[in-house]
Amino acid sequence: MTHSIDVAARAIAAAGTEIRTVSGAFGPLSIEGHFDEVIAAAAVVEQVRDARDWSPDGIVIACFGDPGLDGAREASDAPVLGIAEAAFHAASMVATGFSVVTTMSRTCIIAEHLVQRYGFGRACRGIHGTDIPVLELEDCNGETFEQMVQVAEQALERDRSGAIVLGCAGMASACQTMQQRLGVPVIDGVAAAVTFAQALATLKVGTSKRGDYARPLPKAYVGWRGWD
Amino acid sequence: MTHSIDVAARAIAAAGTEIRTVSGAFGPLSIEGHFDEVIAAAAVVEQVRDARDWSPDGIVIACFGDPGLDGAREASDAPVLGIAEAAFHAASMVATGFSVVTTMSRTCIIAEHLVQRYGFGRACRGIHGTDIPVLELEDCNGETFEQMVQVAEQALERDRSGAIVLGCAGMASACQTMQQRLGVPVIDGVAAAVTFAQALATLKVGTSKRGDYARPLPKAYVGWRGWD
Amino acid sequence: MTHSIDVAARAIAAAGTEIRTVSGAFGPLSIEGHFDEVIAAAAVVEQVRDARDWSPDGIVIACFGDPGLDGAREASDAPVLGIAEAAFHAASMVATGFSVVTTMSRTCIIAEHLVQRYGFGRACRGIHGTDIPVLELEDCNGETFEQMVQVAEQALERDRSGAIVLGCAGMASACQTMQQRLGVPVIDGVAAAVTFAQALATLKVGTSKRGDYARPLPKAYVGWRGWD
Amino acid sequence: MTHSIDVAARAIAAAGTEIRTVSGAFGPLSIEGHFDEVIAAAAVVEQVRDARDWSPDGIVIACFGDPGLDGAREASDAPVLGIAEAAFHAASMVATGFSVVTTMSRTCIIAEHLVQRYGFGRACRGIHGTDIPVLELEDCNGETFEQMVQVAEQALERDRSGAIVLGCAGMASACQTMQQRLGVPVIDGVAAAVTFAQALATLKVGTSKRGDYARPLPKAYVGWRGWD
Amino acid sequence: MTHSIDVAARAIAAAGTEIRTVSGAFGPLSIEGHFDEVIAAAAVVEQVRDARDWSPDGIVIACFGDPGLDGAREASDAPVLGIAEAAFHAASMVATGFSVVTTMSRTCIIAEHLVQRYGFGRACRGIHGTDIPVLELEDCNGETFEQMVQVAEQALERDRSGAIVLGCAGMASACQTMQQRLGVPVIDGVAAAVTFAQALATLKVGTSKRGDYARPLPKAYVGWRGWD
Amino acid sequence: MTHSIDVAARAIAAAGTEIRTVSGAFGPLSIEGHFDEVIAAAAVVEQVRDARDWSPDGIVIACFGDPGLDGAREASDAPVLGIAEAAFHAASMVATGFSVVTTMSRTCIIAEHLVQRYGFGRACRGIHGTDIPVLELEDCNGETFEQMVQVAEQALERDRSGAIVLGCAGMASACQTMQQRLGVPVIDGVAAAVTFAQALATLKVGTSKRGDYARPLPKAYVGWRGWD
Repeated sequence: MTHSIDVAARAIAAAGTEIRTVSGAFGPLSIEGHFDEVIAAAAVVEQVRDARDWSPDGIVIACFGDPGLDGAREASDAPVLGIAEAAFHAASMVATGFSVVTTMSRTCIIAEHLVQRYGFGRACRGIHGTDIPVLELEDCNGETFEQMVQVAEQALERDRSGAIVLGCAGMASACQTMQQRLGVPVIDGVAAAVTFAQALATLKVGTSKRGDYARPLPKAYVGWRGWD
Repeated sequence: MTHSIDVAARAIAAAGTEIRTVSGAFGPLSIEGHFDEVIAAAAVVEQVRDARDWSPDGIVIACFGDPGLDGAREASDAPVLGIAEAAFHAASMVATGFSVVTTMSRTCIIAEHLVQRYGFGRACRGIHGTDIPVLELEDCNGETFEQMVQVAEQALERDRSGAIVLGCAGMASACQTMQQRLGVPVIDGVAAAVTFAQALATLKVGTSKRGDYARPLPKAYVGWRGWD
Repeated sequence: MTHSIDVAARAIAAAGTEIRTVSGAFGPLSIEGHFDEVIAAAAVVEQVRDARDWSPDGIVIACFGDPGLDGAREASDAPVLGIAEAAFHAASMVATGFSVVTTMSRTCIIAEHLVQRYGFGRACRGIHGTDIPVLELEDCNGETFEQMVQVAEQALERDRSGAIVLGCAGMASACQTMQQRLGVPVIDGVAAAVTFAQALATLKVGTSKRGDYARPLPKAYVGWRGWD
Repeated sequence: MTHSIDVAARAIAAAGTEIRTVSGAFGPLSIEGHFDEVIAAAAVVEQVRDARDWSPDGIVIACFGDPGLDGAREASDAPVLGIAEAAFHAASMVATGFSVVTTMSRTCIIAEHLVQRYGFGRACRGIHGTDIPVLELEDCNGETFEQMVQVAEQALERDRSGAIVLGCAGMASACQTMQQRLGVPVIDGVAAAVTFAQALATLKVGTSKRGDYARPLPKAYVGWRGWD
Repeated sequence: MTHSIDVAARAIAAAGTEIRTVSGAFGPLSIEGHFDEVIAAAAVVEQVRDARDWSPDGIVIACFGDPGLDGAREASDAPVLGIAEAAFHAASMVATGFSVVTTMSRTCIIAEHLVQRYGFGRACRGIHGTDIPVLELEDCNGETFEQMVQVAEQALERDRSGAIVLGCAGMASACQTMQQRLGVPVIDGVAAAVTFAQALATLKVGTSKRGDYARPLPKAYVGWRGWD
Repeated sequence: MTHSIDVAARAIAAAGTEIRTVSGAFGPLSIEGHFDEVIAAAAVVEQVRDARDWSPDGIVIACFGDPGLDGAREASDAPVLGIAEAAFHAASMVATGFSVVTTMSRTCIIAEHLVQRYGFGRACRGIHGTDIPVLELEDCNGETFEQMVQVAEQALERDRSGAIVLGCAGMASACQTMQQRLGVPVIDGVAAAVTFAQALATLKVGTSKRGDYARPLPKAYVGWRGWD
């Protein structure tokens, strides 16, 4: 999974961009529920804390639930983008309404919470589970691909949508093929987040350090190295 | 802090109720930002996972940001209540509008996100930071108390509110005194959550195991013991 | 109807609690529309006015439309809970989304207005009429029960809900059986309201007397004894 | 009060229109809180029930809280308009944002609930209490008028509003003078409701009898003559 | 089209009202998309600018997308009403929920944007395209009429609506017949807007000239005569 | 104005990008109200129609009201971005809340409508007019700049915002200096829109041609060359 995300990021990044893909030091092999998400979020902010040592110009959280996004922004002066967030922004720029095609039905609620939180409640017209387990997406063969196409076509029809958002980092490799097949914009969040992070770097705009994204307060931690 | 929460919980629990107050195995000594919150959430779900061994009838997450609430509900058959959530519910039962008096201004946004997520956007008319650090609340002396009263009185006036929600578990001991002083209902989330958890136990209602709160899927974890 | 409500309330109340169940002095035998509701609301606030004589510690309005709730709160220093409100609160504590199973389809709009007013617009995913007349619920025999179960099962499926709220006081007796049958939390508002009223009494929190719930202004009434 | 409403209605009605102004058979002399409102609503639907005998072409509920509006619509085939509702509609047709100037501050919440319920949440930018008791409006002398003008001017400024809605039937007589004084549209709900009721009659559009506004179900009532 | 709008307006206007129906000097013969809409809006405000010469007491924009409404209000002291807006207001006065039956499915989004902007998001329960081209409505023969009736009947059922709004000025002539056929209020926006404009004229209320509807600032225009 | 927009766009575009800056063939010299906006929108879609001849990879509408955005998207296969939209997206990626500093107070409502329409209702915490006429921004001298800084500082304080959006294309040249002065991210929409358009081109994502953004229907136009 980490490898295919790395491939997707390198494929889209501007020439000369250095990409470093890191995995959390602890956590689940895939995120398919709230419990997994909470642990992954902690692993994410730990990586962001450690990234201070090499000062990236932008950070992408490559999981569709955007785990730990606010905490990561506190811990970073550079812009931080979640891939769900980035995909929603991109889709809303090219269609009045879009649909999300994701993995397990039980995780639809995570995407729904993000949609509401980010303000895409009207642009996002439906979130559809394929019930393909995340780890089966890694080798996205013909059958899995056809299943995704079918759910996407139904979503476009039922939701009157004009674009599809792929609701899992593991779907990145299928993006261009699916776009040709469906004839509508198909957005992969990994690629979207990388290009938007580069856009923000070009704009010389970092994460605001005024207000709730100011650096974490220095503080004693137990059993874990904190911010300091 | 853990001790004063324990005192507050025991003071309100029905006769015969066994209260166990546990701290996370890792994490910050206080939660004053998104970064702290993310780590605390992981520590919370770990405790809830381990609580399977002794099957509590109800679980209370005694931090006003309700860290890890959804993950904890996945991991528990018994009802799980956050203290922010419980306080909002209680306040909305006794006043048309309420105001929150909390600690650091920068954490107001965490409460605001919860308010929106839980649907209290109209009932909650204002969230006010006192900028008293969490750990100073432990010995809530006269000066600290007066500062809280002053912020609460201004909030009632400006927000046209009818009740006050205390936005930190550390404020629990001041609750009754403040209610007498202000002449309006003052809600401490720890007490509210304990009584509501008991109400749900009386109703024989547990956390739904259908849909997104179903038990976590069995899954390999790296560097941390997962659900299994 | 009044008798079965009394039974449901006594069954759930804490030991030593005195329960008094009163009917309005005037009004319809059942509430199945806006017109009935308006008259019932007046009968409710009259009872609450008269309850001053015996100072209850909490008041429950045992009709799913919560008729006269705001007026009753003005007229009471003790907490006042509607059973729709209480059921929504309880359901939102144990499931991300819930569905309401109620009586006549034409009264669904009353529940929908309450859902919006109370802020449960996202948590409540559907309101479903069984078109069983209210008074037929009194002897909730096998056939009526099966009809309710069927509507509830469809609601869980279509709405992707995790819990069921029973949308009529007359359904109280079926609650536990239905919960076992459906395998999800089933909430009866009468029981929920009684336990929450007790929770508020334990918290020593009454209806706010500041703002719009302050006692009614002394005032001349024609043809009806007013507040004084 | 009833007399001045009658005057306002006759002044605006089309030539040849018969106006009948009736008071409730029971209830408070003025409505200044939820309790009064609940009783007044019952008195209103009783009058609407009795109006079947003389089949009016339109009905106006001349109290700014629109008490009993839904119940009245069930009980009437002709259109029924509340004066708050009518005033909000009219104001939104001539200004992007409007402010409400009403009587007691404690009743602002009633107007706020209506604003939300009817969908004017963005158009209505503020609701301002003058704390003039309703019955003092009857002889709206110079001092009372100046007080209303002052609150209205502050409201226009603070809310960036373009129009004023008068939040009490008792303010009707001051409407034209205030409009000249303020230089912005000033809407009196009684006049607005009468003209809109006439517009609907011209359109040959009555209250829908499909769905929740269908006539009340025949039903036994206790202590009060029901619908039949 | 312009002729049939003229007929509809004259049929409903009060005796003695002078009706002038004008077409834009440029623009599409029908509006069936955003592109057409933008051009039509410019043609509308040009006509409103020129109408200053003959000072109408009220202006109706007789296209269901309400093109140029805000600009027209800036350019007019008299009230200006769009027919979509007027129809939504009227429908919400006689039914708790209504459905819109319009022409091309692709223009539903224009109506949806208006619904949200005007605050009818809860009252409007569905917008349904018949995919009848606008210009075919002119001779609304039996077949076209039956198609509209069928879509309307399905809409009432699926949306649980109590009234129908006709989503095109070209449907005006079918309004009364459809109302008889469906047995629910059917609203034609042209007629609704004319009666509401007359209501506002009766109320002596014009477009607010304070704030964003104040007359346009004097300003140099290139290639088009501006406001001056 | 057109020249300074051209400079801002070229400064931020990737190496090798060809920038063509065009003005409308007709319309106001500046946009300071709804009336100006409607005419400008028509001029915009005309330019987009004509741009088919040279097939740009992306189109930016460089006016903060995003005039004609939906119409332009219909008329273009390439992505189209408004500068208000782009600025809101960028700001929401680096701060929890942002404030807009714009020109005339009377145009704040235009920005407010966009904020609501695009879903930034919670992220955008305030829109503040400086009442500097648009054309005075062209030579943004010391005094004008100080005025903008002052309004921005007050906005950050009052709105508890973490970033500033510049609400006029004419403010572009001041962006970097203001960012240094204020110490928070300051977003110029022209630069934001250019970088986002490049991001979408990199993603190989164009405007959806399914649904309401499909190419305009072929159609007769009067007095203006239509789409064909």
